[in-house]
Amino acid sequence: MHISVNECCELLKKEDNIVILSHRNPDGDTFGCAFALYNILKFLGKKSRVECSDGFSDRYSFLYEGYEKEDFIPQYIVAVDIADEKLLGDPLESKYSGKIDLCIDHHPTNKEYATHLLLDASAAAACEIMEKVCIGLNVPISRQIANCIYTGVSTDTGCFCYSNTSKNTHECAGRMIEAGCDLILINRLMFEVKSQARISLEKEILETVEYPFEECALICITNEMLERTGASENELDSIASMPRQIEGIEIGITMRERQGEFKVSVRTGEKYDACEICSNLGGGGHKRASGCTVQGDFQTAKSKILDVIRTYMQSLEEK
Amino acid sequence: MHISVNECCELLKKEDNIVILSHRNPDGDTFGCAFALYNILKFLGKKSRVECSDGFSDRYSFLYEGYEKEDFIPQYIVAVDIADEKLLGDPLESKYSGKIDLCIDHHPTNKEYATHLLLDASAAAACEIMEKVCIGLNVPISRQIANCIYTGVSTDTGCFCYSNTSKNTHECAGRMIEAGCDLILINRLMFEVKSQARISLEKEILETVEYPFEECALICITNEMLERTGASENELDSIASMPRQIEGIEIGITMRERQGEFKVSVRTGEKYDACEICSNLGGGGHKRASGCTVQGDFQTAKSKILDVIRTYMQSLEEK
Repeated sequence: MHISVNECCELLKKEDNIVILSHRNPDGDTFGCAFALYNILKFLGKKSRVECSDGFSDRYSFLYEGYEKEDFIPQYIVAVDIADEKLLGDPLESKYSGKIDLCIDHHPTNKEYATHLLLDASAAAACEIMEKVCIGLNVPISRQIANCIYTGVSTDTGCFCYSNTSKNTHECAGRMIEAGCDLILINRLMFEVKSQARISLEKEILETVEYPFEECALICITNEMLERTGASENELDSIASMPRQIEGIEIGITMRERQGEFKVSVRTGEKYDACEICSNLGGGGHKRASGCTVQGDFQTAKSKILDVIRTYMQSLEEK
Repeated sequence: MHISVNECCELLKKEDNIVILSHRNPDGDTFGCAFALYNILKFLGKKSRVECSDGFSDRYSFLYEGYEKEDFIPQYIVAVDIADEKLLGDPLESKYSGKIDLCIDHHPTNKEYATHLLLDASAAAACEIMEKVCIGLNVPISRQIANCIYTGVSTDTGCFCYSNTSKNTHECAGRMIEAGCDLILINRLMFEVKSQARISLEKEILETVEYPFEECALICITNEMLERTGASENELDSIASMPRQIEGIEIGITMRERQGEFKVSVRTGEKYDACEICSNLGGGGHKRASGCTVQGDFQTAKSKILDVIRTYMQSLEEK
């Protein structure tokens, strides 16, 4: 059942011993939301704890400053920024599936799995909604809550650059700055810092840049490169956007080696349709960002991809 | 004489045939401000033109969409985002020094060279002030004016990451989004796109990364690297911030070769004082960002710098 911010606040006021669930592969918005809610509930004198199938990573440690895990028998289960129970991942999915009392989310694709759902699909981040919950509960926005909400809002909008960034997103960020959020630290950690392994990997990736056609750039990541640089899978974040950062490039292709095949990401500008390209290789996705899997060694896989792109570009010219 | 936004609007209403001056090495704020003002004056039926000692670069071409240079005998001279007449550079400095009627600026160091000065040092960008002028003149914020103001605000705050970013900065950006600014295009051009030469240069720079001490990284740019990659001097923008992007690095050193010596940039985190380091090498600057020049070939110059840093770090340990 869909509920309003006020109804959500009334529910939270009544409950105690609350478990807050984040999605697997946690990001700034699910953790920002979860720890903001933890701090809100703590202010109200309630017991709560945050759970995530992948645990808490160091990258977000500033969000759980002062967090104390409390033991209690759960009486109320809240999922934040989770469109589908499957995104809980295991062990949380097995444990909580079908038992979630409240979901606070901004995904238009939300599966309505919770008893009560506070959904605002116009919000760029679930944290924008959490700010409203905080205000609705009359909880002052502490520096710590501001850090959590700012992190969700800035990360889910790619530092206010994505098309989901709205007037309200900026206003929310402005209020968090006024509430004392540490924007220098957060922006450094979220958008600037790279591990030494990632730096080495980027160097190796830049060595693979090819320009097979005008407006088209291709990069490749092999298992050997990961081994040599010590970079792990979760350090490949946003690598697929690298080729499109090159001036004049309208089709950016990233090939990632996997057991005898290549996972291919295609990113395009306004002129080309990534989904159409990838669907010709058995994949799909969105107009600007799509993917597919191509069999064979590097040269074979690359030829297959470039053949498809060549044909696609020629068909456009003929139109 | 310092004036208010309203007084500034009254002055502009009375004048016509207005020359708008940008500073040399133009950035998003001086051009954003200048072309916003041009569009405001055009709406009011006035003649104006923008001048810059370095001309208009392609990088900002989206700001002067629809701009038509008009010929007229200047009756009123306005400088935007210019703290000091010297920053006009030549030929504009010789032409307009001592003749500037109005200055709209946000630098606390403004030299008060203009007859009337609208200064708001709390503004992150001069474009924040220009928005108020636009509102004060009852000019609706068109998509084109919104593009100009958004560009100034986002570039002068490093995409809302620098410490000058305030609640008003975000609110202003939010209003520009509502007025239809093209945030996808602007953010791509201002923060994402790199030339092919810059990409090649970054690859070569990453090959030079050294970690001489814990928390310290060093990169080097030689003339040979610029020649080989075809990168020009103005493509070195923000290169000096690269070493500090590496996880755990608190002292980032960038060495840039110049005729038998090295221009050295030092960037530090909260733990270290870049200015103290550079002053030991005859340079100076700010606590987090300083510079100096060191004589000798690469190895000699590097040894000098690392000796100073080693001594500096030891002196801190002893404290």
